[in-house]
Amino acid sequence: MASSSATPEPPYYAVIFTSVRTPGDDGYDDMAQRMVELATGQPGFIGVDSVRDANGLGITVSYWQNKEAIALWKANSEHLVAQQKGRDFWYKNFSVRIAKVERSYGKE
Amino acid sequence: MASSSATPEPPYYAVIFTSVRTPGDDGYDDMAQRMVELATGQPGFIGVDSVRDANGLGITVSYWQNKEAIALWKANSEHLVAQQKGRDFWYKNFSVRIAKVERSYGKE
Repeated sequence: MASSSATPEPPYYAVIFTSVRTPGDDGYDDMAQRMVELATGQPGFIGVDSVRDANGLGITVSYWQNKEAIALWKANSEHLVAQQKGRDFWYKNFSVRIAKVERSYGKE
Repeated sequence: MASSSATPEPPYYAVIFTSVRTPGDDGYDDMAQRMVELATGQPGFIGVDSVRDANGLGITVSYWQNKEAIALWKANSEHLVAQQKGRDFWYKNFSVRIAKVERSYGKE
């Protein structure tokens, strides 16, 4: 069943990753799955939501306890390799935005 | 062509809206299109990226110059009607997160 991540009371951090894929898989799906596994085991990881549509536009938002946790994840050696392949091959373009969540509400 | 929103140098604000749809359209697509039109005309609006996958999970991130612009948009009368229908009918569940973008980078 589709659902979105549970997060604690703010403040915490979000990494908003917006991307457009190049055509073809070229190892992308395996990497994406592995990165979720790897992120889940990182200190300060809260959760991740990821959606890509048929046009190739994707939005992944990961949630972290603080900026230090995001910096550690960015510097993870296996993640560094994936970031480089992403920049070189998998993504036509992408944006990464680091944001401090100040307020939240919703419907469960 | 798929692409994601252009945004200025931080700081600015993001509204991260994560949702799971109920089955059926029930006026949803028309409303969603109208809300993008309406938001685009609001003071302080920067841009919006929106993706929904086949499982019904959607992520929409809208970008705003400041918190005041977000509050004005939330209070827009036509948007208030859509928010109520969303809560009552269109969304099985949703989360709204208001976040201050502190840093960004990417590949154009």
